[in-house]
Amino acid sequence: MKIAALQMQAVAGDVAANLARIEDAAGEASRLGARLLVAPELAVTGYGAGDAMTALAEPADGPIVQRLQSISAQTGVAIVAGFAEAGSGAVWNSAVLVDGQDAPLVYRKSHLYGPYERGLFRPERPAAVTFDLDGISCGMLICYDVEFPENVRRLAQAGCSLVLVPTALPASDHAAFIARQMVPVRAFENQVFVAYVNHCGADPCYVYAGLSTVAAPDGSVLAAAGDTDEALLIAEIDPTAYAASVGQNPYLRDLVI
Amino acid sequence: MKIAALQMQAVAGDVAANLARIEDAAGEASRLGARLLVAPELAVTGYGAGDAMTALAEPADGPIVQRLQSISAQTGVAIVAGFAEAGSGAVWNSAVLVDGQDAPLVYRKSHLYGPYERGLFRPERPAAVTFDLDGISCGMLICYDVEFPENVRRLAQAGCSLVLVPTALPASDHAAFIARQMVPVRAFENQVFVAYVNHCGADPCYVYAGLSTVAAPDGSVLAAAGDTDEALLIAEIDPTAYAASVGQNPYLRDLVI
Repeated sequence: MKIAALQMQAVAGDVAANLARIEDAAGEASRLGARLLVAPELAVTGYGAGDAMTALAEPADGPIVQRLQSISAQTGVAIVAGFAEAGSGAVWNSAVLVDGQDAPLVYRKSHLYGPYERGLFRPERPAAVTFDLDGISCGMLICYDVEFPENVRRLAQAGCSLVLVPTALPASDHAAFIARQMVPVRAFENQVFVAYVNHCGADPCYVYAGLSTVAAPDGSVLAAAGDTDEALLIAEIDPTAYAASVGQNPYLRDLVI
Repeated sequence: MKIAALQMQAVAGDVAANLARIEDAAGEASRLGARLLVAPELAVTGYGAGDAMTALAEPADGPIVQRLQSISAQTGVAIVAGFAEAGSGAVWNSAVLVDGQDAPLVYRKSHLYGPYERGLFRPERPAAVTFDLDGISCGMLICYDVEFPENVRRLAQAGCSLVLVPTALPASDHAAFIARQMVPVRAFENQVFVAYVNHCGADPCYVYAGLSTVAAPDGSVLAAAGDTDEALLIAEIDPTAYAASVGQNPYLRDLVI
């Protein structure tokens, strides 16, 4: 199964522009044979929408997710994208899966980073949110979640082979370490694929690191974006190709708590 | 506090030769101002002693540990070294800390790798075995243990700033990934120091990967050995120098289970 990862320069606060960008990418992903498109954290609103975030938040049955569902139906490409989710007097930093047919599946970020996110969102209790796509079990995390090994382990123990991670990693001294060194280790230590999909460029709040990375169970990097420009990465997700790595590194079998 | 890491070519089955090598290294570590010397997994017996291992195993109050204690007292350098520990009808793959004064402290490996180790040793239940050295809280793991993030997390949550990992990593496709990519991630994701100390050369059972690595809380590599030769690495362990990294990456504070 091929997947596409959209390293995206979102426009903070411009939902229409960001949905149009995702629509374009889904079309391109379809032409390239991808079954799934992953967009960054809060791709629909922009990560740096700031005070506008609450007004841009919608429930999972609102027009934003309906539009994503429609794009998926038109292109035949499932989509995982970050959006601000409203409900029950709260706003969550969420990612939604749409496949053009079934009800949307929402994952809410459990590990919020720093005062910006904690000021805007409610954290959700950590949980494995998983779905099946062409026989491959997939799970979702968002950004800072993946920096905690416990969160990837939870998905691997729930049977996932592919972990999708919309992210918004700002440029910093540690950004390359996280994207290029930690993400492949998360893949290796669980013998799963990890797709870590970041913003690039800047908005009024942040400069983003780019460096989107798709890592394989053996820790190799299948696809990698640069640090500044948009990119649509394509990666082949074939768990059967990594049987040797799983055999030599049977962490899930050998783990004792 | 300075520590020394001995990447060592042990002689399988020759306890006298290996103790003499450790004694030499402790003297050199003392001259270089180190407070602690770390030797590899099963450094005293050799990792590849095979069927001779059981006969070479001793209790923690036996002559091997007494000799290490004596070397520590003479050099003023605490020592962490791997040995085969006998007791209660079992043999453990253990590491001992001696500081020349206090009773030896033993850590027994919890995650045995593959049929060779499982045929020779009994696994211990995972536990935090910690000690204080010049005000720095240290913990011990052995080799495969450190590849499981749960084991380093346990020590970090017990307050350790420095994790000492005698290891016996054979040469393989994954060896460099584990030593140079995973070990720094273990340090970074817990904001601790990790000293990963391997064998080099070969014995009748294995060829070792070398690549001993001391990693800092910010994921940087403080000291690194090559893949073939013996080396005595020296690294400065100063947790106060990494306050900025801890502030930006507060994983222990932010973790939610």
